[in-house]
Amino acid sequence: MRIVLALDIGGTKLAAGVVSESGEVLADRVEVTDASVPAEAVLEKLMGMAGEAVGQAGVAWGDLSGAGVSFGGPVDFPSGRTVTCHHLAGWEGFPLREAVRDRSGLPTVIDNDANAAALGEATFGAARGCAHALYLTVSTGIGGGVIIDGRVYRGAASMAGEIGHTLVAPDGPVCTCGKRGCLEAVASGPSIARAAREALETGEASALASIPRSRLTAKDIAEAAVRDTLAACIMGQAGEFLGIAIAGAVNLLNPNVVVIGGGVSGAGDVLFGPVREAVARYAVPESARELRLVAGELGQRGALLGAAALALTQGKA
Amino acid sequence: MRIVLALDIGGTKLAAGVVSESGEVLADRVEVTDASVPAEAVLEKLMGMAGEAVGQAGVAWGDLSGAGVSFGGPVDFPSGRTVTCHHLAGWEGFPLREAVRDRSGLPTVIDNDANAAALGEATFGAARGCAHALYLTVSTGIGGGVIIDGRVYRGAASMAGEIGHTLVAPDGPVCTCGKRGCLEAVASGPSIARAAREALETGEASALASIPRSRLTAKDIAEAAVRDTLAACIMGQAGEFLGIAIAGAVNLLNPNVVVIGGGVSGAGDVLFGPVREAVARYAVPESARELRLVAGELGQRGALLGAAALALTQGKA
Repeated sequence: MRIVLALDIGGTKLAAGVVSESGEVLADRVEVTDASVPAEAVLEKLMGMAGEAVGQAGVAWGDLSGAGVSFGGPVDFPSGRTVTCHHLAGWEGFPLREAVRDRSGLPTVIDNDANAAALGEATFGAARGCAHALYLTVSTGIGGGVIIDGRVYRGAASMAGEIGHTLVAPDGPVCTCGKRGCLEAVASGPSIARAAREALETGEASALASIPRSRLTAKDIAEAAVRDTLAACIMGQAGEFLGIAIAGAVNLLNPNVVVIGGGVSGAGDVLFGPVREAVARYAVPESARELRLVAGELGQRGALLGAAALALTQGKA
Repeated sequence: MRIVLALDIGGTKLAAGVVSESGEVLADRVEVTDASVPAEAVLEKLMGMAGEAVGQAGVAWGDLSGAGVSFGGPVDFPSGRTVTCHHLAGWEGFPLREAVRDRSGLPTVIDNDANAAALGEATFGAARGCAHALYLTVSTGIGGGVIIDGRVYRGAASMAGEIGHTLVAPDGPVCTCGKRGCLEAVASGPSIARAAREALETGEASALASIPRSRLTAKDIAEAAVRDTLAACIMGQAGEFLGIAIAGAVNLLNPNVVVIGGGVSGAGDVLFGPVREAVARYAVPESARELRLVAGELGQRGALLGAAALALTQGKA
């Protein structure tokens, strides 16, 4: 059985793990990301954590068949360089693949976190055994990954999967990207919280009114939605927009499965119900009929297992 | 140089041709489709036309390396059966691949006309040399084909590429599919003509008023658009909707090229200008930057050359 080194450079945490071919995490280290240190120092720290994980797993570096890295920002796949990081400074054009390869002595694959998580779900999680999958992460932002024939499809410039910036609400709020009405602007965690705050400000009655406005999160709204009309309505609206974007992608890609991961996917039926209704309404029936639409299975370990899945693509035919 | 048999079963015409590997049509026959005859009889006639084309090309059946068929309706690719035809009765579940193979003695590939045309453009036309392409045909309906790594991507149930039923106008007209606001309902040829008729009925001044309403076509409107405000506005609106749907697909697929074929693509700048503007506005900049967005090059011969391209996929690695 092959074992690999899995690394995750995210906006809020760094993780390093030793993972087996079957998806078992033999050992791992997780630390909070320090946004004030430069890329080189982040990497130094991460490789230290990797060394500890290798030691704890009771294996030697020579036992590892490769390394995979999930990075929290766009990656130019052919060159193995990061483009930029959404959360950390100093990652513009950083040769991450080469740097990890040189420090670990291992053949290395890097990709952005959405593609890594998509491959993780396809290899170890909810899309296991499916040829064609669409993965969405719904969290602070909305990202996506496209799996075709069991592999990450990256497109012409390593930019495929950007479903978060699909126009779904022409008169909707302005997105973090500067455009108006993107899916991310109406269905991400912060967008759901903002919609609730705006409704409360107009004086709508809701159990949510007992939570301080500035601390209101999508998680609060999802929890309230089982018994509160306003909360249910707001989750329903976000779900409908997600469903509209997913339906368009389903029409185009006709995948076997759509997997929704990221923090907001923990909302469960109050989100998935409206998503499924919208997909049934807006996708072509022949593509919707046998489609599975499910929550991600890997949760917090999605990025690490995604990194492991990237590493395992090496040496495969 | 390989030569193949190319067959096209469309709603309005049947075509059979002998085509070389370089895309040269050595001989062809085209006839009007008779919608009153059953599938078997259509096929009989088509194979007769094929025999004439083979004779005229001065080749023997044994010189052909395979046959390809473009069919005007959905095809179940794994089984080689037609699902139904949008224009002709009696094609439900017809074993077209087997029937052509048995009658021609040639290894045969069949696909729907949009996929065939997409592969035709990728092999001989505007997407030549591109790894990843999105093809749209804008005509009586709007269909599409997705090319990944130079091959047709078909999805889980041979349904990929259905961009015509993307929701782009939530409050828009009802589509032929029964849903409201599909791209096809606002940007197909008949939809463009309907929008013009409706505007004229409200009394808007336009050069189009001189054309009998019931005979007004998208072609008339495209021709008038260079000098008539209403016509320009209607083409602009259709182009904007096309651009919105294309931008969503570009975000997801990050193709090298988008090719627009079909009758309406002949409108030229009055359509392509607004399409390009909308794509620039709604696609992520990294995917839009190096994207080529062009008209199809194969025109009327798209289906036949697409069928030839399908035939040529056989025996390739």
